[in-house]
Amino acid sequence: MTARYTISELARLVGGDLHGDGGRVISAVADIAEAGPDDAAWVSQPKYADRASTSGAGVLLVNSAFSASATTVPTIVCEHIDRSVAQLLAAFAPAPAYPDVGVHATAVIDESATVEDGCAIGAHVAVAAGAKIGRGCVLHAGTFIGRGTTLGTDCVLWPNVVVRDGCVLGDRVTIHPSSVIGADGFGYYFDKGAHQKITHIGGVVLGDDVEVGSCSCIDRAKFGQTVIGRGTKIDNLVQIGHNGRVGEHCLFTGQVGISGSVRIGSYCVFGGRSGSVDNITIGDGARLSGLGTVAGKDIPPGATVSGVPARDHRDYLRERAAVRRLPAMMEQLKALRKRVEQLEASADDQ
Amino acid sequence: MTARYTISELARLVGGDLHGDGGRVISAVADIAEAGPDDAAWVSQPKYADRASTSGAGVLLVNSAFSASATTVPTIVCEHIDRSVAQLLAAFAPAPAYPDVGVHATAVIDESATVEDGCAIGAHVAVAAGAKIGRGCVLHAGTFIGRGTTLGTDCVLWPNVVVRDGCVLGDRVTIHPSSVIGADGFGYYFDKGAHQKITHIGGVVLGDDVEVGSCSCIDRAKFGQTVIGRGTKIDNLVQIGHNGRVGEHCLFTGQVGISGSVRIGSYCVFGGRSGSVDNITIGDGARLSGLGTVAGKDIPPGATVSGVPARDHRDYLRERAAVRRLPAMMEQLKALRKRVEQLEASADDQ
Amino acid sequence: MTARYTISELARLVGGDLHGDGGRVISAVADIAEAGPDDAAWVSQPKYADRASTSGAGVLLVNSAFSASATTVPTIVCEHIDRSVAQLLAAFAPAPAYPDVGVHATAVIDESATVEDGCAIGAHVAVAAGAKIGRGCVLHAGTFIGRGTTLGTDCVLWPNVVVRDGCVLGDRVTIHPSSVIGADGFGYYFDKGAHQKITHIGGVVLGDDVEVGSCSCIDRAKFGQTVIGRGTKIDNLVQIGHNGRVGEHCLFTGQVGISGSVRIGSYCVFGGRSGSVDNITIGDGARLSGLGTVAGKDIPPGATVSGVPARDHRDYLRERAAVRRLPAMMEQLKALRKRVEQLEASADDQ
Repeated sequence: MTARYTISELARLVGGDLHGDGGRVISAVADIAEAGPDDAAWVSQPKYADRASTSGAGVLLVNSAFSASATTVPTIVCEHIDRSVAQLLAAFAPAPAYPDVGVHATAVIDESATVEDGCAIGAHVAVAAGAKIGRGCVLHAGTFIGRGTTLGTDCVLWPNVVVRDGCVLGDRVTIHPSSVIGADGFGYYFDKGAHQKITHIGGVVLGDDVEVGSCSCIDRAKFGQTVIGRGTKIDNLVQIGHNGRVGEHCLFTGQVGISGSVRIGSYCVFGGRSGSVDNITIGDGARLSGLGTVAGKDIPPGATVSGVPARDHRDYLRERAAVRRLPAMMEQLKALRKRVEQLEASADDQ
Repeated sequence: MTARYTISELARLVGGDLHGDGGRVISAVADIAEAGPDDAAWVSQPKYADRASTSGAGVLLVNSAFSASATTVPTIVCEHIDRSVAQLLAAFAPAPAYPDVGVHATAVIDESATVEDGCAIGAHVAVAAGAKIGRGCVLHAGTFIGRGTTLGTDCVLWPNVVVRDGCVLGDRVTIHPSSVIGADGFGYYFDKGAHQKITHIGGVVLGDDVEVGSCSCIDRAKFGQTVIGRGTKIDNLVQIGHNGRVGEHCLFTGQVGISGSVRIGSYCVFGGRSGSVDNITIGDGARLSGLGTVAGKDIPPGATVSGVPARDHRDYLRERAAVRRLPAMMEQLKALRKRVEQLEASADDQ
Repeated sequence: MTARYTISELARLVGGDLHGDGGRVISAVADIAEAGPDDAAWVSQPKYADRASTSGAGVLLVNSAFSASATTVPTIVCEHIDRSVAQLLAAFAPAPAYPDVGVHATAVIDESATVEDGCAIGAHVAVAAGAKIGRGCVLHAGTFIGRGTTLGTDCVLWPNVVVRDGCVLGDRVTIHPSSVIGADGFGYYFDKGAHQKITHIGGVVLGDDVEVGSCSCIDRAKFGQTVIGRGTKIDNLVQIGHNGRVGEHCLFTGQVGISGSVRIGSYCVFGGRSGSVDNITIGDGARLSGLGTVAGKDIPPGATVSGVPARDHRDYLRERAAVRRLPAMMEQLKALRKRVEQLEASADDQ
């Protein structure tokens, strides 16, 4: 992280308007609470604006709602603060830690496989027969590409990723270490007192710009394809079962689990450790909250759901509130019964 | 997937009775809703029978309850439809994507290890001292076999599997990529202000026909053995803790977590993300439902349980239904209290 | 496991007082229910003391509360039974299954990397430019160390571990197979209809004596560092999100999931599959129970919490008890309403 920029240069890089002196040289990015005079920091949410007044940062990125009088630090006012922060981080990012372009001497590439120009194939990589690696792909050490699998251009597979045979990756697909694409789905039938394996003859298709985290598993289809749509992002330790059909630009946060044959629309958001039973449909734009929500039946488009099994988020909150009041309510019921008993007793007396 | 069969040939292959013309050549398997005239499809459940009438498939596998008049498509009536579908898929499966028989030049096999005839050892495999690899085993690229570990015949270990030292695998064991067999269990004692490691001197035994999914972990025993019985199938991202004793023909669906020293009978079914606290007993044939059920105490044989902590499934459903009615019930209680107050007021008036 | 000790020797090794004859030779460790005359076993909890009277073990380790008259088997009375049992297991542990000291011929070490004396670097290891491997480290087969990453002394990385670029491991850090340290955090901003990646320019710091299980993921920071404090132990399939700051001597049991930017104190205990939403603070010594507890807001120091979202453990138990009684309570409410109706009717009659 040896990049250095004047504040004026940074303002241009992040597309913001500079307020204050632009001459100081900035050499790092830091949290607003810890930043010193050589660091850039930011305030992205109004509720943290008061931190600006006490910050020791050299420059602050702020959004247009931020009042310039709230700090003496130079500020860069950004129309889209999240984008500008991302640009700031990119400006200070070191060169990516990729292997050299070319094929490492220890990599084993089957002679019937194709590796296009500009690829960087690391140590101990194995590429099986008939596989095709598109232009500019990076295969880090220990990665395995199965028979007949094809990668588009500019994919990045981090160390020890496994993509089994017969899968198709689009352009700019990123897969983080130790993830597994295209292993057999979990499918058996019961016969003669034992679970008999169902051969999974389908594959997996990952669309353009799909990203998969570490130690995640996307199973191949029983037949046909398990499909992850363009732009969908998947975190660590996520399971997507066989024959899943996921739309575009969805988010799957850590430890999400999707059973087999689930149809998922586009722009859905799965909070941490949420999930779905098998064979249901989750509509476009649906959101499963990140408290372990599990969809037990179809979820309509645009719904926000919570709980196990998942229900409308507001119903869930109402139920939670009611359960919290339940011990008190039991006391009330008991007290009421006593009052009724007294009424009955006095009625009998009459 | 270049296999081609006439419908008559397929009927023989799947052991069913052909109704209709058997002459057409079938070249693929497809979902009933998407199948074309060269595809085989199936109806395995009566509730989907109406899909048969509109299907464009070349042939349909159906069970004996299916009414032949429900479709004009040729049908193959199968006594055991799940088995026949599995046979159909196997008939169209490509040859398995295994490395060549023999030991790849880049594999590192300790000279004291034994590799029996017919094994296929892929690139960058490492087999440590004293290990024994039985006849016909397939070790895909990047697999690691630890010191003194033994594999029976015809095991298939997919890429980057790790089986540590001192483990025993039976015959026909399959392990999917990036899974870990025989790592240390999570055991410490607290002394001098810190967690001190307990050396785990036991191993892991996987019975014949055990299958383990991707990124799953079966820990070695503190002493003695962690045991997975014959025919048990384990999905992806599953954790089985140290000293677990699992019976035969169980199913562990994705993301199941079993703590240490749990004793599990045979023919148990663990639904997705279910689990167990440590040191309990789960009886033969018990079923944990797939909505994150966690067994908090012993589960009797044959029980079906749900919830956290797990309880009888019917009790769980009753509680769920009651909680759903709880907000309404609170209104009722409030209304009743008002009526009692009125009664009290009029009693006072008298 | 060919170690052999007389009972007297074992008593010295585990630091206990021998009661009974010390001459017999012990050659293995076994469960008290299964131990034979050549085995050592133990009773660590008073509730299992009755098992001692029927045990066939050659010697029993017991704590000072154990009554010597409860068994005829020789006993070794131990002040700190857990420590003594750990010493017993260590005494019978085989030599660790490590690769030979030196660098395996197939390992690929960048010429700008440093490997200090006494390291054992296994087959197919890859160490990138500028990395530093401290004295006495063990890198098992297939491990990857990224650019500029540094390891202290005596670390043990089991097969297929991935530690990406720019990370820092202290002394005696242990990482079990297929775990991933330093992959990108899950961070995007939404722009032009798609999730745009935020470059993660930070790293990961693991303190001295940290242990990480199998298939666990600790993400690199967006900027700055994700920090795991000295002595903290992490089980299998655990996720620690970007910019997490974890204190010293914590325990993270299997399948725990911690979202991004969570601040965690020291001596915290996360039970199996517990977790946390992002951006909260969990105080020193807090305990999250192992039934899937998820912290949804700050947890004060020393608290014991349960449920989703997490609340005081006693409140959780009260709620659970109330919910169990809820179906009965609904019956009571119904009955009470009838009695009120009767009172109302008789009041009307008057």
